[in-house]
Amino acid sequence: MCAYQVIEGHIAKPQGYQATGIYSGIKKVEKLDLGLILSEVPAASAAVYTTNLFQAPPCHVTRESLEKEGKLQAVVVNSGNANACTGSKGVDDAKMMQHLVSQSFGVPKDYVAVASTGVIGQFLPMDCIEEGILQLPKALNNESAPLFSQSIMTTDLIEKTVCVELPIDGKKVTIAGTAKGSGMIEPNMATMLGFITTDVKIEQSYLQKLLRKATDTTFNMITVDGDTSTNDMVVLMANGMAENNELNEQHPEEKEFYQALLYVMQELAKKIARDGEGATKLIEVEVTGAPSVEAARQVAKSVIGSSLVKTAVFGADANWGRILCAVGYSSAPIQADKLDVFLGSIQVVEASFPIPFSEEEAYAYLQGDTVKIGIHLNEGEYQAIAWGCDLTYDYVKINAHYRT
Amino acid sequence: MCAYQVIEGHIAKPQGYQATGIYSGIKKVEKLDLGLILSEVPAASAAVYTTNLFQAPPCHVTRESLEKEGKLQAVVVNSGNANACTGSKGVDDAKMMQHLVSQSFGVPKDYVAVASTGVIGQFLPMDCIEEGILQLPKALNNESAPLFSQSIMTTDLIEKTVCVELPIDGKKVTIAGTAKGSGMIEPNMATMLGFITTDVKIEQSYLQKLLRKATDTTFNMITVDGDTSTNDMVVLMANGMAENNELNEQHPEEKEFYQALLYVMQELAKKIARDGEGATKLIEVEVTGAPSVEAARQVAKSVIGSSLVKTAVFGADANWGRILCAVGYSSAPIQADKLDVFLGSIQVVEASFPIPFSEEEAYAYLQGDTVKIGIHLNEGEYQAIAWGCDLTYDYVKINAHYRT
Repeated sequence: MCAYQVIEGHIAKPQGYQATGIYSGIKKVEKLDLGLILSEVPAASAAVYTTNLFQAPPCHVTRESLEKEGKLQAVVVNSGNANACTGSKGVDDAKMMQHLVSQSFGVPKDYVAVASTGVIGQFLPMDCIEEGILQLPKALNNESAPLFSQSIMTTDLIEKTVCVELPIDGKKVTIAGTAKGSGMIEPNMATMLGFITTDVKIEQSYLQKLLRKATDTTFNMITVDGDTSTNDMVVLMANGMAENNELNEQHPEEKEFYQALLYVMQELAKKIARDGEGATKLIEVEVTGAPSVEAARQVAKSVIGSSLVKTAVFGADANWGRILCAVGYSSAPIQADKLDVFLGSIQVVEASFPIPFSEEEAYAYLQGDTVKIGIHLNEGEYQAIAWGCDLTYDYVKINAHYRT
Repeated sequence: MCAYQVIEGHIAKPQGYQATGIYSGIKKVEKLDLGLILSEVPAASAAVYTTNLFQAPPCHVTRESLEKEGKLQAVVVNSGNANACTGSKGVDDAKMMQHLVSQSFGVPKDYVAVASTGVIGQFLPMDCIEEGILQLPKALNNESAPLFSQSIMTTDLIEKTVCVELPIDGKKVTIAGTAKGSGMIEPNMATMLGFITTDVKIEQSYLQKLLRKATDTTFNMITVDGDTSTNDMVVLMANGMAENNELNEQHPEEKEFYQALLYVMQELAKKIARDGEGATKLIEVEVTGAPSVEAARQVAKSVIGSSLVKTAVFGADANWGRILCAVGYSSAPIQADKLDVFLGSIQVVEASFPIPFSEEEAYAYLQGDTVKIGIHLNEGEYQAIAWGCDLTYDYVKINAHYRT
């Protein structure tokens, strides 16, 4: 039983937040490309960033600022240009975005997080961005919050938002999250852009710990194409306006909060995987009976990342041999002769050996929009779940000519 | 300058070998599916095998036999069925193939290597195979050798054969190689099926050492789809009929032999990459100036394996940002600010920073059938080259319905 309930909502649903999104001219087509989240008061905040060596300037700038006090009051995001591999001018541009938001809304510069997503290696069109940021204050109103989720999209086809509420100390606490991501998805200790707001009152160091822990089982367990982006970032803001007693490890309801946060992050992760470039299906690989969590994750990520498994799912082909093959090259220290494999509820492998199953039934199952692959290692009690999508003609189409 | 010269030839070109291929009924369509290499005398032999946990029975059986004396006299291969994930019956079937060849040609059972390639998880049609092996002796003649390369193909579109000769101790030594492989290609300490024959006289332990060393810079540096097969195997036979003084580490011409062997293996590896499923182009990633060989290989394999780089090359899109991105997530311990990147001779990145280049010129270059990506790390003297291919609509088409 869980303490939280899922509700309709957007990124500004928790108390004391506003958000908006506008078109500033960064994208060639007139789609929203500049977004803002604003908290009424400074929020205890945490973030995780990409581990890519070429971490983009916005990640550097946000990390540097956030490390000072662990607080944020605003987040500014542009889509259409990643401001990555742009050297010191890229850093100056990200700092300029921070400065302009700081001026426009009267919040300290270091309380402003900056994020960018889009094409790598081009300078930001700072004239568009400056003009855009100046328009943000008047674009911010009670109806504008849903526009934020749209303003961070690139090749995404659907908006990704999740909202839950739960009681803590008898106070209503709300958590809202939104994310973008469709290609270049193989997060590693961080993820694509994700933004989570909550009005819970919580210790900042504890918040950072929860974010990192939840990231490992959510955003870090998805893959679209195995490519870890230069710009991945998840920012979590908690402004305390729910007025509960401050959450920390000793709080009696800390587990309930973590479960709710985990749900929000897991749903966002699944939405990213389902909206993977060209995808027609969400694939979920659940590994159970593993000798360790690490082994379970290695196996799950190996299978979810296999191009051959992904194309077979696209073709609704019950090609379980490719699943075993991907388990076999995962490098996980597991035994070779004990595996059971299921497609949904249809068992296709028992003790690493094929067993008869109805091809028709399997074909029908694999045509659904969610395909669950169950792998029971039968040698321990650990488990992991990874999410991904099928590999289709449209993935190739989208990526053969992305820049042009 | 190299001592060897490339010649026309097939797998039975070195002295004392014969080879053939026939259709035995394993494949649904009438294409050759059973092949044999036979040496007049027992040959010092070496092999490397897949590291996949679910190593197929033919790999087990060959390894077990070869480990006894380090000698082979015959190799039997079937295509169309991998005899993988087939348990103890699979082992029995592989041993039966060994037994039947031993009987038909009067060679010791343990001098027969067995290899299989094709669909995973189905039992071999032993009636076809038994009947086929009985037909092999009369299928073996002076014209039949080129058929071997055809008989090992699955989704391969082209035959892959390389032949060189060089003098050692004044004797003519010939090395011939053939390979198959198109999908499920990310060899790891071994590769897809590869067969190399030579008439050189050589110490078996030295032969094994050369094979492993050459594998690391050839077959282990190619990738088509990141999937390490259950059946990868390279077998190298040296029957000594060239009558040179036995090669070992002290032989004055050992380097010349190694260079020739390396050439054969590298050309086969490139042929596999170029014939990758659905591929329209060979991609070669050369990393130089690395702080270690391992770092150079990590970077090269990360870039060659990137779906985003592969699709960009397919679209002839000079999307160098994806190249930097893949370098950045390679986990190689390198510096982030010193990279130069070239597409052919066109420099696109200098000191990790984009520089102006002609998009038209780059587009024209990327439309060629071989694309070279040069990455100079500028921090050491080590290098590595990896080979792969572009990711296309046809890769998806081939793999969405492979079993059916």
